[in-house]
Amino acid sequence: MIKSVAIQGIKGSFHHIVSKHYFGDQVAIHECLSFDKAVQCLLNKETDAVIMAIENSIAGSIIPNYALIDSHNLCIVGEEYLDIQHHLMALPNQSIDDITEVYSHPMALLQCKAFFKTQPHIKLIEDKDTASVAQRIQSKGLKNVGAIASTLAAELFQLHILAKSIQTIKHNETRFVIVKRENHEIPEADINKASLKFELEHKRGSLAAMLNVMSDCKLNLTKIQSLPKIETPWKYAFFVDVTFEDLKNYKKAKAILKIMAQDFKVLGEYKNTKH
Amino acid sequence: MIKSVAIQGIKGSFHHIVSKHYFGDQVAIHECLSFDKAVQCLLNKETDAVIMAIENSIAGSIIPNYALIDSHNLCIVGEEYLDIQHHLMALPNQSIDDITEVYSHPMALLQCKAFFKTQPHIKLIEDKDTASVAQRIQSKGLKNVGAIASTLAAELFQLHILAKSIQTIKHNETRFVIVKRENHEIPEADINKASLKFELEHKRGSLAAMLNVMSDCKLNLTKIQSLPKIETPWKYAFFVDVTFEDLKNYKKAKAILKIMAQDFKVLGEYKNTKH
Repeated sequence: MIKSVAIQGIKGSFHHIVSKHYFGDQVAIHECLSFDKAVQCLLNKETDAVIMAIENSIAGSIIPNYALIDSHNLCIVGEEYLDIQHHLMALPNQSIDDITEVYSHPMALLQCKAFFKTQPHIKLIEDKDTASVAQRIQSKGLKNVGAIASTLAAELFQLHILAKSIQTIKHNETRFVIVKRENHEIPEADINKASLKFELEHKRGSLAAMLNVMSDCKLNLTKIQSLPKIETPWKYAFFVDVTFEDLKNYKKAKAILKIMAQDFKVLGEYKNTKH
Repeated sequence: MIKSVAIQGIKGSFHHIVSKHYFGDQVAIHECLSFDKAVQCLLNKETDAVIMAIENSIAGSIIPNYALIDSHNLCIVGEEYLDIQHHLMALPNQSIDDITEVYSHPMALLQCKAFFKTQPHIKLIEDKDTASVAQRIQSKGLKNVGAIASTLAAELFQLHILAKSIQTIKHNETRFVIVKRENHEIPEADINKASLKFELEHKRGSLAAMLNVMSDCKLNLTKIQSLPKIETPWKYAFFVDVTFEDLKNYKKAKAILKIMAQDFKVLGEYKNTKH
């Protein structure tokens, strides 16, 4: 079992919720200001794992996080899906009419814009994080101020939820990955998903040929994303996730794909948690 | 010829540069605070076209902009690629040592973080836009303040460039699309690229079968992106761009793909500008 996990943000953040789901409550949380810093902690062996949002149903893939995993040769060892729900919260005994200012991350404010149109007395102010505003409201006893954060943040910082699920798009499913320096712990019997990266020359049918091998070997594609390589015109990188029932089939596909593609790389082999 | 084009941001922004490349200088620029507002202008017939960043080599696809085009049934009628270069600028006769504060969009600040580490006397402050800071420096005659913006912004607002191309990743190629309400203007002889969207059941080999048809009909894939449909588990939407030499082959592929996929939709048929 690991001792510590680095997350982007502070306790009460969505990354913290994912850590609780995945690791339980016995692991130390290493709060980091950015994904870059969390990865640095992992590389310096200050922590044993990092949790990283990797894609969501509103914005798609978070390419800079793929790049962090890829460029530092880290391993994806697991995944978690979370439906992101934003709640408006404040000190107890405050009503929504008492709130004059709400501080939050620009993305959270944007996602809740429609709700705040119905509350014209509230001024929206950008802040660097969602959960840290909740923390500040508690520690400084800030009246008339609201935060947009998770139910976990409301519990941790003893705030009262004034309005639930105030984001405009009601479902924002976000996929998080658990990342380590190496992977030598998952029993083969548990592996039924893999994240792959490969490059192809821009030749007609080259991707179709790769997908045919995957299909022939009974791999199911759950994600595909092309990314042009800027330094090398007409060369493309692909990030692909596959699920499978039989590890033998996956190993066979991997052996063939390695020969067909350039720079074929396994970013992680782990257990699928999406059913 | 169109009379007016809506852009996100103000004159001097990267969207304005794209407009100059595509439409020249005779078209009125409709400055909008967000992509949503720009699309609203188009729908209300206040403008004839919208320019929208759609993907870049750092962050990948800008999914919310795909969603705007798709949900309002707009048409992509053209594209432009731009290599985004960020420059530090200020009033003339100021040196970099005179600058104590730089205001810019959080994304621009992030992309130039490494440069500012070498300038510890400069405080970085988030602002809502890049070009509007340049405009403010000129209109208010702000000394000791810097903006991060384009050479066009420096020209328009008569600022002096103190440091060129200060972004950490030297090439950030961004693809912009030109979007209209309808498309009935591009001569068939000019069409050699198309943006497609389709949905597939999560059945093994379903995407490979689509790509095989494209390959058989001599279409070249220049982009592919899957997006899970949150309301419908195991259903995926795909955004695909293809180029081709012979329109007949494309039309044949389109006829077959329409039958194979669910909700097959053409987002645009236009001229490829990437060579």
